Amino acid sequence: MEDIVCKFGGSSLASAEQIRKVRDIILRDSHRRYIVVSAPGKIVASESKITDMLIALASAIAHDYEGRDLIEKIASRYGEIAESLDIPTDYTELVRQDLSARIERYGHDFPLLTDALKAAGEDNNAKLIADYLRNSGIPATYISPDEAGFYLSNIKGVIRPLAETYDNLRDSLLDRSDIVVFPGFFGYTKEGNVITFTRGGSDITGSILAAALQARIYENWTDVDAVYSVHPGLIPNPHPITELTYDEMRELSYTGFSVLHEAALEPVRRGNIPLQIKNTNNPDSAGTSIVARRSDFDGIITGISGKKGFCILHIEKYLMNSEVGFALEVMKILSDYNIPFEHMPSGIDSLSIVLREEVFTPDKERLVVTRILKELEVDSCYVNHGLALVMAVGAAMKSAVGVLGRAVNALSRAGINIDLVVQGPSEISILFGIKETLCNYAIRELYKSFFN
Amino acid sequence: MEDIVCKFGGSSLASAEQIRKVRDIILRDSHRRYIVVSAPGKIVASESKITDMLIALASAIAHDYEGRDLIEKIASRYGEIAESLDIPTDYTELVRQDLSARIERYGHDFPLLTDALKAAGEDNNAKLIADYLRNSGIPATYISPDEAGFYLSNIKGVIRPLAETYDNLRDSLLDRSDIVVFPGFFGYTKEGNVITFTRGGSDITGSILAAALQARIYENWTDVDAVYSVHPGLIPNPHPITELTYDEMRELSYTGFSVLHEAALEPVRRGNIPLQIKNTNNPDSAGTSIVARRSDFDGIITGISGKKGFCILHIEKYLMNSEVGFALEVMKILSDYNIPFEHMPSGIDSLSIVLREEVFTPDKERLVVTRILKELEVDSCYVNHGLALVMAVGAAMKSAVGVLGRAVNALSRAGINIDLVVQGPSEISILFGIKETLCNYAIRELYKSFFN
Repeated sequence: MEDIVCKFGGSSLASAEQIRKVRDIILRDSHRRYIVVSAPGKIVASESKITDMLIALASAIAHDYEGRDLIEKIASRYGEIAESLDIPTDYTELVRQDLSARIERYGHDFPLLTDALKAAGEDNNAKLIADYLRNSGIPATYISPDEAGFYLSNIKGVIRPLAETYDNLRDSLLDRSDIVVFPGFFGYTKEGNVITFTRGGSDITGSILAAALQARIYENWTDVDAVYSVHPGLIPNPHPITELTYDEMRELSYTGFSVLHEAALEPVRRGNIPLQIKNTNNPDSAGTSIVARRSDFDGIITGISGKKGFCILHIEKYLMNSEVGFALEVMKILSDYNIPFEHMPSGIDSLSIVLREEVFTPDKERLVVTRILKELEVDSCYVNHGLALVMAVGAAMKSAVGVLGRAVNALSRAGINIDLVVQGPSEISILFGIKETLCNYAIRELYKSFFN
Repeated sequence: MEDIVCKFGGSSLASAEQIRKVRDIILRDSHRRYIVVSAPGKIVASESKITDMLIALASAIAHDYEGRDLIEKIASRYGEIAESLDIPTDYTELVRQDLSARIERYGHDFPLLTDALKAAGEDNNAKLIADYLRNSGIPATYISPDEAGFYLSNIKGVIRPLAETYDNLRDSLLDRSDIVVFPGFFGYTKEGNVITFTRGGSDITGSILAAALQARIYENWTDVDAVYSVHPGLIPNPHPITELTYDEMRELSYTGFSVLHEAALEPVRRGNIPLQIKNTNNPDSAGTSIVARRSDFDGIITGISGKKGFCILHIEKYLMNSEVGFALEVMKILSDYNIPFEHMPSGIDSLSIVLREEVFTPDKERLVVTRILKELEVDSCYVNHGLALVMAVGAAMKSAVGVLGRAVNALSRAGINIDLVVQGPSEISILFGIKETLCNYAIRELYKSFFN
């Protein structure tokens, strides 16, 4: 298919002015026929995002507040935008009624209510954008995920589309004469309840649509000119990435690159559809292409990222290595407290498990360490906090020798001690565990070594 | 205690000539009062070790052969040694009767019979050595593990002493006026059955005795002048290690240093008793000291070892990282087939599990891969064979920066691709996974880089 699926993020839809830019972008290419929208973001830092207000509203209701003031604030935000865009419909009233209806329907069930209210942000915005485009003379239709058969399910904590969703989308969205405006971020379970992706999930909606429709390209419109090789807050004018692979992007997302939702890559990857990061505020900028295979590499390393907030659970037990199933017992204990782990480098008689501090709370730490000491008869078990994971990612690494050495030398020369190295499975990245306080320093030193 | 526990290995006791050397060694230091002995080893390569013949005998009986010829061969070997040493007792007859009695008692139970017959090698040799020493005018007494309360148990496949064993040994062996000759390699369960360590386990017996008696030193007499920094078959005249820590030795054992049984270190380590590797054929050589803390380092790296025969089970699954308990499910499947794993480096959406080829047989591989594909809905699951693990070990690494870089550069310069790096838990070693065919080459290149 020659058509383009465009997803516009919250900052691209935060005001009437931004939405006019979106209209112009749609008009500039007649193939831009599928528009996935986020909820309105914030224009000034002090403002709240619609989604944050909706979450606050759900929480207020769960605590027996009516949340009238929040409903008014949210509804009037839509009303103001609609008015500035000369949309005749009273969006304040429309959103007010919509939110009340959702509260009416799901008020008894906090998780369902939260999902339903969060979804209201995108849902109402899609209606508003469709109205606006129609008023501007563009034949546009709001399509609800419900009528398009956009079914999702929660499988072990991961929200995924059902297999039939792809067929449903094709059946309902292909070969239409109008432009489709589709709300991102949520879908429906087969039971008919609203279900949302995690935050930023409109990226996933767009990706699923692009894959289902076999779009020529999935354009993800945001507020940056490109994905950069390193966070622009750390290095002035960093190297922009013109092209990177799905897998490179996935690895970089893991340790902090947040341009895209990490789950947004897979649908387009499977469909082999190029994903283009574009800037709504500077549509002439080339942006960044995310593709299956790169045509060219301009360096061994594509990007460097880092993330704080990890810790290491160390376990030592004499002859651990000869004991079949030891690690399994440790995993079971972690699993009992629903603690996912990130990495598990093992020595001969020792095991280190890298965990996210946010899931390994002090309470859970106490429980886990106590149980390991008691049940597994280990020699020692303790936790080192304050770890950062720093990653150098580059698909060109596969065919190059010596990249690890260069990275390690850069850190060593800078006097940075490496607590942990993982180079293995993916072959397109090297992961270092270092002291949290040295995270940004390490990223800068790696950048200097590979990009200067 | 000022006394020394000496363990003599099979090569130190393979002939009358060797046993005379042992007597001289005992006479040279009056503190050498606890002698742990192996079964006679072989003098010429074509000969069989007694232990191998005993295992063959057990197997013959399990297959309904009487094994008369093997019994004669084993018994006459003892008889010849005793005769050459002018021991008046008829050891051929004595061993013949001993083996028959063991077969009589345990013939119905193959595992028990195997243990009982294997133990006969050390047991009869200890009696022979005690006889010989007494005949030479040295007051020596054979003590059986049974009367000394040398109790062992099998905990999840690892043979360990019971806590009371240490007390029992102290009670029965301390403050004796004679020299104790104690058979290595086996002990007794609380039920009264013979139980053996894995092959080479006399090293463990000596270590447990040394720890129980709080010996000044545990001398392990073998046939090499020292532990070398690298296998002497790979580098001519390699650097001899004069001193290394228990932990360094343990790591080096893991990937191929076989001077000591890997489980022999822990008892002396816990008791903080120095272990001295000595050469029966060259007792004036200083040997190698294995200690808790080194007084001095003569280099960053203490030793380099490598071992072939590993493989990697690769698993890829989109969003594996977000799925709590995924690795646990994989571990459970491995555990169902009693497959221990060595290392488990994980990527973002991938998991690599390093396994020993010897435990991951083609049959098990088929079963495991099929189940992972079917039950865990992964995107891919396959095995890469022919991996070697190469390890650079050095306790000085902890306080040095840049060692990893140097090691990685040495391999890179040599054009060796690194499939896997694990530097983590122990902090005294770096482990590389490389192609099996490059194993010796990699060891040599690392050696050149750190020792030349």
